[in-house]
Amino acid sequence: MNFASDNTAGAPPEIIDAIVRANSGTDSSYGADQASRRLTRKFSDFFGTDVTVFPVATGTAANALALASITPRHGVVFCHQGAHIHVDECGAPEFYTSAKLVPVPSPDGKVTLSGLRDAARHFHRGDVHHAQPASISLSQSTELGTVYATSDVSAISAFARAEQLAVHMDGARFSNALVSLGCTPADVTWKAGVDVLSFGATKNGALGAEAVIFFDSAHVGDFSYMRKRAGHLFSKMRFVSAQLEAMLDGDLWRRLATHANSMATRLEAGLGAIPGVTLAQPVQANEVFFTVPNHTARRALLDRGAKFLLWSPPADEIPLIRLVCSFATPAEDVDRFVGCVREVL
Amino acid sequence: MNFASDNTAGAPPEIIDAIVRANSGTDSSYGADQASRRLTRKFSDFFGTDVTVFPVATGTAANALALASITPRHGVVFCHQGAHIHVDECGAPEFYTSAKLVPVPSPDGKVTLSGLRDAARHFHRGDVHHAQPASISLSQSTELGTVYATSDVSAISAFARAEQLAVHMDGARFSNALVSLGCTPADVTWKAGVDVLSFGATKNGALGAEAVIFFDSAHVGDFSYMRKRAGHLFSKMRFVSAQLEAMLDGDLWRRLATHANSMATRLEAGLGAIPGVTLAQPVQANEVFFTVPNHTARRALLDRGAKFLLWSPPADEIPLIRLVCSFATPAEDVDRFVGCVREVL
Amino acid sequence: MNFASDNTAGAPPEIIDAIVRANSGTDSSYGADQASRRLTRKFSDFFGTDVTVFPVATGTAANALALASITPRHGVVFCHQGAHIHVDECGAPEFYTSAKLVPVPSPDGKVTLSGLRDAARHFHRGDVHHAQPASISLSQSTELGTVYATSDVSAISAFARAEQLAVHMDGARFSNALVSLGCTPADVTWKAGVDVLSFGATKNGALGAEAVIFFDSAHVGDFSYMRKRAGHLFSKMRFVSAQLEAMLDGDLWRRLATHANSMATRLEAGLGAIPGVTLAQPVQANEVFFTVPNHTARRALLDRGAKFLLWSPPADEIPLIRLVCSFATPAEDVDRFVGCVREVL
Amino acid sequence: MNFASDNTAGAPPEIIDAIVRANSGTDSSYGADQASRRLTRKFSDFFGTDVTVFPVATGTAANALALASITPRHGVVFCHQGAHIHVDECGAPEFYTSAKLVPVPSPDGKVTLSGLRDAARHFHRGDVHHAQPASISLSQSTELGTVYATSDVSAISAFARAEQLAVHMDGARFSNALVSLGCTPADVTWKAGVDVLSFGATKNGALGAEAVIFFDSAHVGDFSYMRKRAGHLFSKMRFVSAQLEAMLDGDLWRRLATHANSMATRLEAGLGAIPGVTLAQPVQANEVFFTVPNHTARRALLDRGAKFLLWSPPADEIPLIRLVCSFATPAEDVDRFVGCVREVL
Repeated sequence: MNFASDNTAGAPPEIIDAIVRANSGTDSSYGADQASRRLTRKFSDFFGTDVTVFPVATGTAANALALASITPRHGVVFCHQGAHIHVDECGAPEFYTSAKLVPVPSPDGKVTLSGLRDAARHFHRGDVHHAQPASISLSQSTELGTVYATSDVSAISAFARAEQLAVHMDGARFSNALVSLGCTPADVTWKAGVDVLSFGATKNGALGAEAVIFFDSAHVGDFSYMRKRAGHLFSKMRFVSAQLEAMLDGDLWRRLATHANSMATRLEAGLGAIPGVTLAQPVQANEVFFTVPNHTARRALLDRGAKFLLWSPPADEIPLIRLVCSFATPAEDVDRFVGCVREVL
Repeated sequence: MNFASDNTAGAPPEIIDAIVRANSGTDSSYGADQASRRLTRKFSDFFGTDVTVFPVATGTAANALALASITPRHGVVFCHQGAHIHVDECGAPEFYTSAKLVPVPSPDGKVTLSGLRDAARHFHRGDVHHAQPASISLSQSTELGTVYATSDVSAISAFARAEQLAVHMDGARFSNALVSLGCTPADVTWKAGVDVLSFGATKNGALGAEAVIFFDSAHVGDFSYMRKRAGHLFSKMRFVSAQLEAMLDGDLWRRLATHANSMATRLEAGLGAIPGVTLAQPVQANEVFFTVPNHTARRALLDRGAKFLLWSPPADEIPLIRLVCSFATPAEDVDRFVGCVREVL
Repeated sequence: MNFASDNTAGAPPEIIDAIVRANSGTDSSYGADQASRRLTRKFSDFFGTDVTVFPVATGTAANALALASITPRHGVVFCHQGAHIHVDECGAPEFYTSAKLVPVPSPDGKVTLSGLRDAARHFHRGDVHHAQPASISLSQSTELGTVYATSDVSAISAFARAEQLAVHMDGARFSNALVSLGCTPADVTWKAGVDVLSFGATKNGALGAEAVIFFDSAHVGDFSYMRKRAGHLFSKMRFVSAQLEAMLDGDLWRRLATHANSMATRLEAGLGAIPGVTLAQPVQANEVFFTVPNHTARRALLDRGAKFLLWSPPADEIPLIRLVCSFATPAEDVDRFVGCVREVL
Repeated sequence: MNFASDNTAGAPPEIIDAIVRANSGTDSSYGADQASRRLTRKFSDFFGTDVTVFPVATGTAANALALASITPRHGVVFCHQGAHIHVDECGAPEFYTSAKLVPVPSPDGKVTLSGLRDAARHFHRGDVHHAQPASISLSQSTELGTVYATSDVSAISAFARAEQLAVHMDGARFSNALVSLGCTPADVTWKAGVDVLSFGATKNGALGAEAVIFFDSAHVGDFSYMRKRAGHLFSKMRFVSAQLEAMLDGDLWRRLATHANSMATRLEAGLGAIPGVTLAQPVQANEVFFTVPNHTARRALLDRGAKFLLWSPPADEIPLIRLVCSFATPAEDVDRFVGCVREVL
């Protein structure tokens, strides 16, 4: 019953097989290998438009490098107050961009237009005293397991265009969002105004593989130099690229994310029926946030072997619990956990 | 009727005289001159404790360098949402520290304990995913012309100590605050738990002179190297130090700030009596924030030759106006401005 | 006949097996997994002293992070003029440290004491105008395939101690150097005065795994935060750590490096006997540098299917060629290449 | 007899007068004042072409900001091994640019074409592993008191153009070089291919005033934001700009530099006639480098009240002494110093 994160799972056989297949003979290094060179076509097909692809191995690297491509040193990045880039990457965006992150509050993890407007009005364009608004980062799905509708993304992108801001999407759980929305990858990215995407594969089953996807090559800039000088250009890049390729081949990404999402939905259904449980957020991807009435109940769940994170400060009287499902979460674990909660309450 | 800022005034004769006196013969460069060497004793006397003093020439330099001394690259600086360091220094603190600024909201420009607690709870000490809480920056007086009571500062410092945070005071208008509080310089700084102060002289009448004051030499660290590599070590430092010395000599700082504050009080009294005017903040130092009913009235004031800043977004229906008084603001200008407002409304 | 680099080879079965074994069930993320936790003991045994181990996935990350731990922002890193950190990492050390790299020339890739002294005399300790000497970085084996004797390292470390400098070893090809020297890992590291080592596994057969090894925990500082904010903390760290563990288990590192070195020696023997070939450097690890009389000969080798890098500027009349052997270089390729050279000349 | 530096002198009356004149009434802040606005025209006249001017207060700020405008973060700046930016600014260029400085050796302080070519060949354009050649910085006059002929500058600029590098001139002693060359300011800057100049006024008599001059507005980029976020935008900018204006008015710069240079020539003549003295560099501006036979002689000069810097490492047997003359150096001091040397030897 490990719901601590989707990164506590390992990798499905398809990923391991891809690594093994990639390990045949010599190949060019630093991304000139065959697997890496195939990625451009495969991701372009996936998105239905010509994209530029840069594989990296961690989500923090993908995000920080993507933001550094669209944000000058004197720029402002707007993001949700609870965005991973703001609260979970130890200042990586500041390190890579040297810019300022300005958090936008909202209860459901999604940046709102009114929140953006409020945040942006403190930073006047062309005023040398103000860090200059440069970009917006959206997490899809969000840190609270919610998903932006394509219309949400389009509306924010329209604001961004009007204000000359670039739009980044942190897609650490992009596959889960796609499955949830049932739309095409294009619909919720470039067609909705996204300029650059951190396409996550690790949380969805890769060992360590993410892709920075530029929909507009004008934003690429010095990316390849920045990646290298950050130490994120792998000499044996084929082993990173092979994982990404495997994710796209036969829509593996979809199968894996569909399972994860369905386990979250199963949790939602089970937990929602238990008196004393309150679901704190709509379950739209692979995460479930819910409260139990007290810490005694929470600890009783831990005692029964469940692993999860406490999402509220420990001092809060009503514990908010986060559950994350992965491609590997067994239905039995879900059912067992629901049973435990029922027992405990 | 120039109320645009206290930096639109020049310098009083005492400052010019100090420059002229400093210009006699050769002297050592880079801070080894006689004026600079006298500063340690003079500032130590001023504060009633041994301090370490680093003169610089701009407030942004003072703040950014001070913060960089107490904040590691992976650190968090908490400050008010409208703090100068957050919204008026074009990201200087991020440039110098490489750290993250986390804004704390409040209506009156003062960081509150509850705001600090809310902001801090997203950044867990010892958790490698989180930028690490490192420092708090307080503006004294604030960007909204309010002043922290010594008990306010002590309460925040107590929180800071408990959370292992250092406390910085942005004293661009420190003299105005001191005059307002009527306390000693010690009372509202080291005795109240402040670790490092940006002592501002420029807004109070210097050409360009500020001092970074460390109350605890343990925080000095690599300051002298950072100042040099930032280009803020003046070769002819005597001309910066002479201004600071002049400010302390004969309590010039007090005379200048007393005048500025009294002009603000006079504005407050005059404006407060006019129907249609609302004072938006208590006038505690040398700034006045008030609203007039509409932009027609605001423009009418500009047409009559008044200079001031619009502090609310232009789109707001009720304009919020900021007036700043300086050591040089004539009482006649104050009275004339009040008369204009009366006329216009 | 791929001698372009040791990173054009894939991975030996032991590494793949380790990945597969690591992929069982859920495990803690971000380095709290079982494989990562075993590394401290295994590397401490390997080095015969208690070490602190931080796995990362690229050599550039290992070097830049290690240097950032021992070099303040206003510091100087001394390194060989041709050091990987200086000419092959696109400024990564400057990005991570914000410090200055000062190159030291020498004909054989090894930093010399006299070169260090010459370079250091421009940067006076305690003089605020000068970036402050902070560290020395040695590549073992060097970029020219030579190896520092333990006495070389000790002599440089003695200088370092006297000058209050820390010593970093870039061990991207550390295993090759160890095999060449026939000494213990301790002999040429901490016993010879090295403070922090980038232990390379990738060039020796890992998919992407390096370890930053601190011999003195006093130097660790904020490493874990810096690694995270650089995006080099892997969520599924077990797959990086498993590779490092596999390298140590049963001395796999030694077997792999022994093969690579012996192939280089075989090349040296074969090429050295051919008139017209000049070996440019002693072959002490897994690299061979030699000249052929003209570019026609060089091109003829390429035409025969050999892959290698031209190490001299293309404009030079006498081409300097670099050959690198890996754990996977077949003896037949070596012999065939030697035959080709004989044919061509 | 203070020959320690040209920054140990104060300011001539014209500079003080300019400060006093600037101190009349209120004026706009942050460079919107009248003096600052006149600078564009005055400097454009001075250079005979339209220039963009940014006043700052220190030479290190001017250099670091200028370099940051023409050098990307992954760039290389080539400069002389003894350049101020490399050895006397505590890493300021690295801080502002995040790029790599590559020193070029030569005996007389001037970057040579062959030295540039040697240095540049390690950094291949378009190769992601290499920091990318971006700019060349020339000091005019140099740190060794020599002066580039206009043909020297043109030749280096031609190389720069061919290699797509921008050219920066560190003109901390630009006026001294101009007087020495007897050419127009245009001849040795934009007409000779210089893109951006740090125009120094401080060493020539200002209290603290330098101007970054862009000859090609395409290089200006984000300069105004970078200056602000570095803390180098003065609120009371009029006092900096007034100094620059005073330097240009009536060719004050020329009168001051002519005196300084003539004092250096007088030293050269006097010292050159003394047996045992060796002039180490041609005296082409306001600095004299010479050796005395031993440290006893050097110390005897100090004992007689002379102030100067020892330019060779203290361990060297033959002391190399640097003398710098300023606008304020009295001829009597020169003659007295020469007399002292004669006495001592």
